[in-house]
Amino acid sequence: MKFISKLEHSLDLKKSHVCVGLDSRYDRIPEIFKRKQSVAQSIYEFNKEVIDATHDVAVAYKSNLAFYAGFGAQGLEGLARTNAYLRKQHPEIPTLADCKRSEMGESVKMIEQEIFDWLGFDCVMVTPWFGFDTVKDYLKHPEHGVVVYVHDSNPTATEFQELELKDGRLVYEAVTQRIVEFWNESGNVIVEAGATYPLALRRVRKIVGDKMPILTAGVGIQGAKPEVLKGTFGKNGRRLFVNSSRGIIFAGEGKSDYFGAVRAAAVELQKQLWSVHLQK
Amino acid sequence: MKFISKLEHSLDLKKSHVCVGLDSRYDRIPEIFKRKQSVAQSIYEFNKEVIDATHDVAVAYKSNLAFYAGFGAQGLEGLARTNAYLRKQHPEIPTLADCKRSEMGESVKMIEQEIFDWLGFDCVMVTPWFGFDTVKDYLKHPEHGVVVYVHDSNPTATEFQELELKDGRLVYEAVTQRIVEFWNESGNVIVEAGATYPLALRRVRKIVGDKMPILTAGVGIQGAKPEVLKGTFGKNGRRLFVNSSRGIIFAGEGKSDYFGAVRAAAVELQKQLWSVHLQK
Repeated sequence: MKFISKLEHSLDLKKSHVCVGLDSRYDRIPEIFKRKQSVAQSIYEFNKEVIDATHDVAVAYKSNLAFYAGFGAQGLEGLARTNAYLRKQHPEIPTLADCKRSEMGESVKMIEQEIFDWLGFDCVMVTPWFGFDTVKDYLKHPEHGVVVYVHDSNPTATEFQELELKDGRLVYEAVTQRIVEFWNESGNVIVEAGATYPLALRRVRKIVGDKMPILTAGVGIQGAKPEVLKGTFGKNGRRLFVNSSRGIIFAGEGKSDYFGAVRAAAVELQKQLWSVHLQK
Repeated sequence: MKFISKLEHSLDLKKSHVCVGLDSRYDRIPEIFKRKQSVAQSIYEFNKEVIDATHDVAVAYKSNLAFYAGFGAQGLEGLARTNAYLRKQHPEIPTLADCKRSEMGESVKMIEQEIFDWLGFDCVMVTPWFGFDTVKDYLKHPEHGVVVYVHDSNPTATEFQELELKDGRLVYEAVTQRIVEFWNESGNVIVEAGATYPLALRRVRKIVGDKMPILTAGVGIQGAKPEVLKGTFGKNGRRLFVNSSRGIIFAGEGKSDYFGAVRAAAVELQKQLWSVHLQK
């Protein structure tokens, strides 16, 4: 199945815009998961509980590899087990590797082996810094997706992404236009733009048009309110998905029913986003 | 020891400008290393032979993580063993993680655990795309270095890196200036610029001044001749180092003395670069 079809299917059928960020760093997982078993198994079992609590709300799962690789081979093995579980139990939910890997040529083949074969993701995320070389090899396999970070949610995202070009455009606008006009010939390339810069996000939506799914981040802990997303949801209000990581997966900290609180956090975000997407 | 001191020491004392790229993909390692042992041990033992054959010529070793992670946890374990060997046998030679990791905030701590603690590198390489957030946390630990890719050697490197800004500068020039003026307060940030764009490399040298070490790539298999490096060597002709990966580590393919050929390739590049750096 093509990645873009899988993602669109999820966005169309689920009454949700929530992407759950499985940034499950081992040192923040409840102690109860760490007894008498390997780091890999602890991470996997924690993620399994998060998935069981959120799968009907999650339009996608995104995992930042840093939070796994920070705990060595065992961390990455925990991530591989997590994606294997997702593929078996919820094959309809797309999985995104938030890895900032931006390779080209021979090393892209290696990234494919790592991200798609070993770790079991559907989609890789790359910076546009090295140009089309970073993306072109992925176009041969439309069952895999590519997300390009065009405008990020972090405080210094504007430092280079908003430099003004001679022709009046900002750098991120030029990047987004290139993606739409030249990079996306296989239809499996989408973009990420942070909700903490709502003007930029709206501009990105305008450039990519109504049909392309946009991944956004920065709602919640990073400070953006769901209301700022108004007008960026795209076709039928179903072409935007919003990542939340810590705000969901660690919502159970200090609570008696950890995963009840995880589920409640995901559902609450879902409700907020649903209400904003209905506003015309 | 500060990373920059370790690197400068290596550049000052070795009569060489060669950085050996340990892009030792398992599927290209000679079969003799693969008998009766794990993938990790095979990779390690191959790298050990490369290191034994080149350590007196190598001013640094750079490993692209993709070529290890492409073979799973075993591949990365082989890399960790390689760097452990380097730290023990040749603690004076800096090691660079060519990983394009560009994280920020909480996840930088994770990258530190992965790259410096687990895999055992001295230095991480990042894209500038997300701005200063990607670099600032590394400044707290000057024993670790950061290389920022400011202008790359690949064919589409110019797509965004050479966009012209309103003020007349090109994007990579603006990036390089920011690094020099604002990012390098701890002295542990250096830059990479590809030899396949000699004008850009010269421009980068001009912007960073004579003292900052520059890592370059693209000489040899990627097509740049050593002569194009003339005038970019910096202070005392000792502030440029030139990565070569496949051209060195796989130079033994089809030869009766594999590692003799590896050594010969490194020495040949050393000679060529030495002769160019002497030209004023």
